Amino acid sequence: MKSHRQELWFEIETRRAYLNITGKVQKIVDQSGIREGLCLVNAMHITASVYINDDEPGLLKDYDDFLERIAPHEPIAQYQHNQTGEDNGDAHIKRQLMGREVVVAITNGKLDFGPWEQIFYGEFDGRRPKRALVKVIGE
Amino acid sequence: MKSHRQELWFEIETRRAYLNITGKVQKIVDQSGIREGLCLVNAMHITASVYINDDEPGLLKDYDDFLERIAPHEPIAQYQHNQTGEDNGDAHIKRQLMGREVVVAITNGKLDFGPWEQIFYGEFDGRRPKRALVKVIGE
Amino acid sequence: MKSHRQELWFEIETRRAYLNITGKVQKIVDQSGIREGLCLVNAMHITASVYINDDEPGLLKDYDDFLERIAPHEPIAQYQHNQTGEDNGDAHIKRQLMGREVVVAITNGKLDFGPWEQIFYGEFDGRRPKRALVKVIGE
Repeated sequence: MKSHRQELWFEIETRRAYLNITGKVQKIVDQSGIREGLCLVNAMHITASVYINDDEPGLLKDYDDFLERIAPHEPIAQYQHNQTGEDNGDAHIKRQLMGREVVVAITNGKLDFGPWEQIFYGEFDGRRPKRALVKVIGE
Repeated sequence: MKSHRQELWFEIETRRAYLNITGKVQKIVDQSGIREGLCLVNAMHITASVYINDDEPGLLKDYDDFLERIAPHEPIAQYQHNQTGEDNGDAHIKRQLMGREVVVAITNGKLDFGPWEQIFYGEFDGRRPKRALVKVIGE
Repeated sequence: MKSHRQELWFEIETRRAYLNITGKVQKIVDQSGIREGLCLVNAMHITASVYINDDEPGLLKDYDDFLERIAPHEPIAQYQHNQTGEDNGDAHIKRQLMGREVVVAITNGKLDFGPWEQIFYGEFDGRRPKRALVKVIGE
């Protein structure tokens, strides 16, 4: 069994953003030399998500609107976590709803995807350097 | 390390449905010959889920009611994604809440489950052929 | 490829609770002798979650408040599942929102985590013995 590990770093200038990282993950799978196995991609921060869905601008806006509707950023005093001096209580909830990680099958050296599957890094508390982990295992 | 890949195809006649696929997944694990490892089951479409919970009709109704309450199908104009000509903006949100995939331990050749765990395919935009991927790795 | 399996048992005295199990999972990884691979941690019950986030008491309260706001325990008659004689319809929804499982990379024998990542067992229908599964595969 082979394994390969790499980090992807982001510094997003806005509080929230949705970034298609599919090409970067496939490149890491290529570098791993692994043809059959599993690829884990996870946010290494607890106010960000890695998830799989469509790369369509209207949809990204819908996700953002939905998350703001059910776990709004303001007023920040609504979250007890923000009594620690943070203002990212909402981001910890948004991240749970969108998920921390994806596990993707590797088949014939490729991310084994249906027609519209794309991997996204979802940022809910940006404006600082943050990262995702890619771990590939297989043969 | 061995690996095995198979697709499950569905053509569900309603927009939404919740289908117990546990037996089909166990059959694929049997065919893989893998006794110890991990089994990934994921929707290959971005308006469907694979999740694990109870096979109890009242619960399936509760999930459907809950999802319609927080991300209703209508009015379809509430989702920007639907400006592309689609009417499935809600389905992309419902799928995120229920999840894309499950990873299940394989122990002694069996899906290593607690007493009530069952694997479901959750469809949120049916009435056309769609599929899930099963990838098993191990020995 | 090596694999290792162990269960963690809990008997939580309240209906809901959020328990940091990171140390227990790392100990199982140590016992496995696996240095590079993947570690699956999942609830074996369908009214409990395993998730990764911060160990900060205000945040745990925020999660609990959020989950009670969007899927309240009472009135129990609002859930069709409770017509079976159960009173845990809400717990099945809360568990879906927080997730069943996490998959964590193992690198150099350690859970490969960002600075604040901690593994939690989220209980939504406690007051009886329940368990989580840890399955480690790798080399």
